[in-house]
Amino acid sequence: MEFEFTAAELAAITGARGQRGSTSERIRGIAALSEAGPGDLSFLGNSRYKAEVATTRASVVLLPPDHAGEPAAGQLFLLVENPSVALALVCARLERKLWPAPAAGVHPTAVVARGATVADSATIGPLCVIEDGAIIGERAHLQAQVFVGRGASVGEDSWLMPGVVVAADCTVGRRVRLHSGVVVGSDGFGYEFVAGRHQKVPQVGGVDLGDDVEIGANTTLDRARFGRTSVGEGTKIDNLVQVAHNVRIGKHCILCAQVGISGSTTIGDYAVLGGQAGVAGHLSLGKAAKVGGGAAVTADVEPGAFVNGSPAIPYMLERRVAVLRERLPDLFRRVDALEEVIDGLKKLSPEGAGRKMPPA
Amino acid sequence: MEFEFTAAELAAITGARGQRGSTSERIRGIAALSEAGPGDLSFLGNSRYKAEVATTRASVVLLPPDHAGEPAAGQLFLLVENPSVALALVCARLERKLWPAPAAGVHPTAVVARGATVADSATIGPLCVIEDGAIIGERAHLQAQVFVGRGASVGEDSWLMPGVVVAADCTVGRRVRLHSGVVVGSDGFGYEFVAGRHQKVPQVGGVDLGDDVEIGANTTLDRARFGRTSVGEGTKIDNLVQVAHNVRIGKHCILCAQVGISGSTTIGDYAVLGGQAGVAGHLSLGKAAKVGGGAAVTADVEPGAFVNGSPAIPYMLERRVAVLRERLPDLFRRVDALEEVIDGLKKLSPEGAGRKMPPA
Amino acid sequence: MEFEFTAAELAAITGARGQRGSTSERIRGIAALSEAGPGDLSFLGNSRYKAEVATTRASVVLLPPDHAGEPAAGQLFLLVENPSVALALVCARLERKLWPAPAAGVHPTAVVARGATVADSATIGPLCVIEDGAIIGERAHLQAQVFVGRGASVGEDSWLMPGVVVAADCTVGRRVRLHSGVVVGSDGFGYEFVAGRHQKVPQVGGVDLGDDVEIGANTTLDRARFGRTSVGEGTKIDNLVQVAHNVRIGKHCILCAQVGISGSTTIGDYAVLGGQAGVAGHLSLGKAAKVGGGAAVTADVEPGAFVNGSPAIPYMLERRVAVLRERLPDLFRRVDALEEVIDGLKKLSPEGAGRKMPPA
Repeated sequence: MEFEFTAAELAAITGARGQRGSTSERIRGIAALSEAGPGDLSFLGNSRYKAEVATTRASVVLLPPDHAGEPAAGQLFLLVENPSVALALVCARLERKLWPAPAAGVHPTAVVARGATVADSATIGPLCVIEDGAIIGERAHLQAQVFVGRGASVGEDSWLMPGVVVAADCTVGRRVRLHSGVVVGSDGFGYEFVAGRHQKVPQVGGVDLGDDVEIGANTTLDRARFGRTSVGEGTKIDNLVQVAHNVRIGKHCILCAQVGISGSTTIGDYAVLGGQAGVAGHLSLGKAAKVGGGAAVTADVEPGAFVNGSPAIPYMLERRVAVLRERLPDLFRRVDALEEVIDGLKKLSPEGAGRKMPPA
Repeated sequence: MEFEFTAAELAAITGARGQRGSTSERIRGIAALSEAGPGDLSFLGNSRYKAEVATTRASVVLLPPDHAGEPAAGQLFLLVENPSVALALVCARLERKLWPAPAAGVHPTAVVARGATVADSATIGPLCVIEDGAIIGERAHLQAQVFVGRGASVGEDSWLMPGVVVAADCTVGRRVRLHSGVVVGSDGFGYEFVAGRHQKVPQVGGVDLGDDVEIGANTTLDRARFGRTSVGEGTKIDNLVQVAHNVRIGKHCILCAQVGISGSTTIGDYAVLGGQAGVAGHLSLGKAAKVGGGAAVTADVEPGAFVNGSPAIPYMLERRVAVLRERLPDLFRRVDALEEVIDGLKKLSPEGAGRKMPPA
Repeated sequence: MEFEFTAAELAAITGARGQRGSTSERIRGIAALSEAGPGDLSFLGNSRYKAEVATTRASVVLLPPDHAGEPAAGQLFLLVENPSVALALVCARLERKLWPAPAAGVHPTAVVARGATVADSATIGPLCVIEDGAIIGERAHLQAQVFVGRGASVGEDSWLMPGVVVAADCTVGRRVRLHSGVVVGSDGFGYEFVAGRHQKVPQVGGVDLGDDVEIGANTTLDRARFGRTSVGEGTKIDNLVQVAHNVRIGKHCILCAQVGISGSTTIGDYAVLGGQAGVAGHLSLGKAAKVGGGAAVTADVEPGAFVNGSPAIPYMLERRVAVLRERLPDLFRRVDALEEVIDGLKKLSPEGAGRKMPPA
C-alpha cells in the first residue's frame, strides 16, 4: 500500500507536544527502530528498545516527552504522550486507504430474503446470504460471502469480513468487527448418554455480541443450550478461539489466540487470557483475572488474581515450580546421597542399626 | 425466539410420571434454577444444585421422581425419570421452530454440476457448489454456501450448515450434522525431505463419516495418504478439532473442542477426549479410553484407562503429582535442611567425618 | 477413486532398481503392510515395520535395495532407493485423477472486479470474489467460493481451495496450495488500553507467502501492524495454526497442526514445530530449531536446539524431568523417612538434640 506523509502532517496527526531536529524526507513507510531507513517513521513503544533510538535510521521517530537523546542529522523526533497510541493514529489514517468506505447498497449477487430488513446505508457485498427476519443496521458492512441467519441481527457500523457466519437468532452489536471465518451460533456441544448412544440435547439459545467487540479469524462461538452465550462490550477475541455454550464473557476482556472456554463458565470484566489457555466448564473467573498462555484453569479464579500452568496455580508459585522442575534430577541425586549417608551412620550406631527405615 | 407452553403441554412432552403443585403461568422461557423467574421452565440436571430447587422462582421445575421437597405457591414440579433428557425433549420442540424444515429443491443461485445426483427431497440452499459425480441423499440439507466436491456423497437427512466443505471423494453418512466451517478432506500433512526441500506426498485417500456423526464449527478432517480417514457412527466432535490423515475414530466417541489427533492414530469406540487434548501419531487408544483436557498422549492407552497431564500418565497419579508439584519449594527446603543436619552429624562423628558425600 | 496399474507400470513409475518375484495381479489399491491384500501395493516406509514384510499379502511391495527377504508366491518386490518417495511417485499419478486439471477461464457466477487482472490460463471457479487491483497469475486455480481482496496477488500455478480468503494487500507466491478455510490477512491482534477501553491499533501491513508454501485447512495468518508478516519459500503449515502479526517464518519450516506463534516472533529456516506447540511473542527461534508437540516456548531457541515441555526446556532434560515427575510421590515419602530417622538420631546424640532443624 502506497502512502506519503510530510513531517508536518505527522506532527499534526500525532498531536506532538514538541519536536527535536528536522527532516526533509517524505514518509512512505513505517518500521521498527532497528529496521527503519530514510523515509520511514518509527517509534519507541517499549522502553526496552530505548538504546535503538540512538542508532535508528528512521527519518521520524515518535518518542515519549522525557526522552533524553538528540536526533541525528536529517532526523526528526516527535515528542508525544504515548508513542504507541500516536502511531495508532497514523495507522488509522492508512487503514482508511486500505479499507476504503464501501458504497451503500445490496450487490446483485447477494441473496436477501424478502422478510429481511437491511438499512439503506448498509453495504451487502457479493454472494452474501441474509435469511428471513434478519436485521442489518445502518452502515453495517457485509463484505462478501457472509451468511446471516433467520432472525439474527447486525448492529450499526459493524463489519463482517468474507466468509463470516452469524447463525439464526444471534445478535451482533454496533461497531463490531468479525474477521473471516468467524462462526457465531454453532450448536453447543451437549449430549445425554442414553442406551449406549449420545443423544443430542438441542441447543435452542443464541449468542449476543456487545458493542465494540472484535473477533478474530475462524473463532467459534456456540449458541446456548437455552438462554444466551454472551460477549460483553469492548471485549477483543483473537483467532481460533473456542467459546462454548452458555459462556458469559464480561466487558473489555482480552482472549488471545487459540484460547478455549468450556461451557457455562463466566469471565469477569477486564479479564485477560493468554494464548492457548483453556478454562474448564462451570467456573467463574473474577474481574481483571489474568491467565497465562497455555494455562489450564480447573478452578475458580479470584478477581485480580494471576494464574499460570497446567493445572493453573498462582503465577508466582508456578514460576518458582517451573524453575525447580529443572533441578529435579539434582534433587533425586541429593536424596540418594542422603540415604546413603544415613545408612552408613546407622551401621556405626548400635541403636541406629536397630532402627528400621520406615517403609516407603 | 418466542414460544409458549402450558403446564399440561410440558407434562405431556416430558412424559412426566408425577406432579406436585400447580401453576397458571404460560411457560415462555427456560433458565437455570438460580436465574429462572415466573414464566420459566427449569430443571435439576445435576444433584449439586439440589439446594437451589427450594429457592428457584421458576414456574415449572423438572425433577427426579425421588426429589423430596415441595413446590412453592404457584409452582409446579414435574417428576421425570431424567430431568436433563426431559428438558432435551422440550428443546427438541423449540429446535423445530428455530430451524424450520426447509422446502425441497435447488436454489437458483446454487451451482450444481450436470453429473451430480441430487435427491428430489434434498434442499440445496443459495450459493452452494456441487461438483461432478457428487451424490446428495434424500432430505439432505445444504443450507448455504456449502461445497461438495467431485465424487463426494452426503447421506440422507444430513445437514451441512453455511460454509461447510466436503472435498472430492469423501463420504458423509446419514443424519450427520456438520457445523459451519467444517472442512472434510483437506490434504493430510505429509512430506518427504529430499535435497533440502519438503517434497509433497500426494494424499489420495479420502474421509468417511459414519451415520449420526456431528462435527463442530471449523473442525478439520484430513483425507488419508491412501485408504481412508474415518469417524465411526454416532461419534460427536466439537469445534476447532484437528483429525489428521489416516486417523480412525471409533463409534460413539466424544472429542471436545480443540483436540488434535495426529496421523494414523486409532481411537476405540466410546473413547472420550477432553478439550485441547493432543494425541501423537501412530498410537492406539483402547475402547472407552478417557483423556483429560489438555493432556498430551504420547503412548498407547489401554481400554478403559483414564490418562491426564503432559505427557499423559494415569489420571490418579497425575492428580497426585499435580498436588505435590505445589509442594516442591517446600521439598527443596526440607532437603536443604536434612543436608545441613547431616553435615553437622558428620562433624561430630570421627568416622562420619571421614566419609565423603557421594558426588551429586 | 478407481485406478489400475500393472506391475510393469509400477516398476517404471517408481524407477525400481531391481525386482524379486513376480505377480500377475493388477494393482487397484494401496495399503499398509499389515492390511494389504491381493491387488494391493504396499511399502516399507519405516524400518520398525520390517517384520511385517514377511507376512504381508500385498501383491507388490516397495522395499529398500538392501532388503534381505524373499517374496511369497505371486508377490513382487520392487527395490527402490527410498520406498516412501517411490510411493509418493505413485500417489502423484493418482492425484492427477483425483484433481484433474481444470479448464482455464472465469466461471460465470464468479464476481471479478473490473480493475482485477486475471491471467488467461487461470481458473476462477464458481462463486469466487476478486476485488479491484487483485492479480491472479498464470494457471492459478481458485476452486470455488474463494475471496481475493483488493490489491492482493496470487502467483502462478497456485491452488486456492473452496472457501479460502486472501485479504487486501497480501501476496501469495507460486505453486502455493491453500486448503479450505485458510485466512490470509486477518487483522493482527493489537490494542492500546486507554481510558478503560482497548483502543484498536489499526493493522495496515500485509502478509507475504513465498513460493511452494502449503497451508492447511482453517489456518489463520494475520496481517502485520505495519510491514509484513511472512512465510518463507517451501514452508509447510498444517491445519488450524495461528500465525500472528509481524511473525517471520523462514524457508522450509514445518509447523504441525494447532501451533500458535505470537506476534513479532522470528523462526529460522528449517525449523520444525510439533502439534499444539505455542511460541510467545518477540522471540527468535534459530535455524533448524525443533520444538516438541505441545511445548510452550517462552525464550529464544538456539539454532539446531530441540526444546520441549511447558515452559520449554532442552529436550533431553525435559524427558528426564517427565520421568522423575512420576516418581515424585515416592520422593516425598523418602524425604519423610529421612526426616524421621534424623529426628531419631538427634534424640540419641546430646549434641544433636541441641541442634535445631533450620526453619522450612
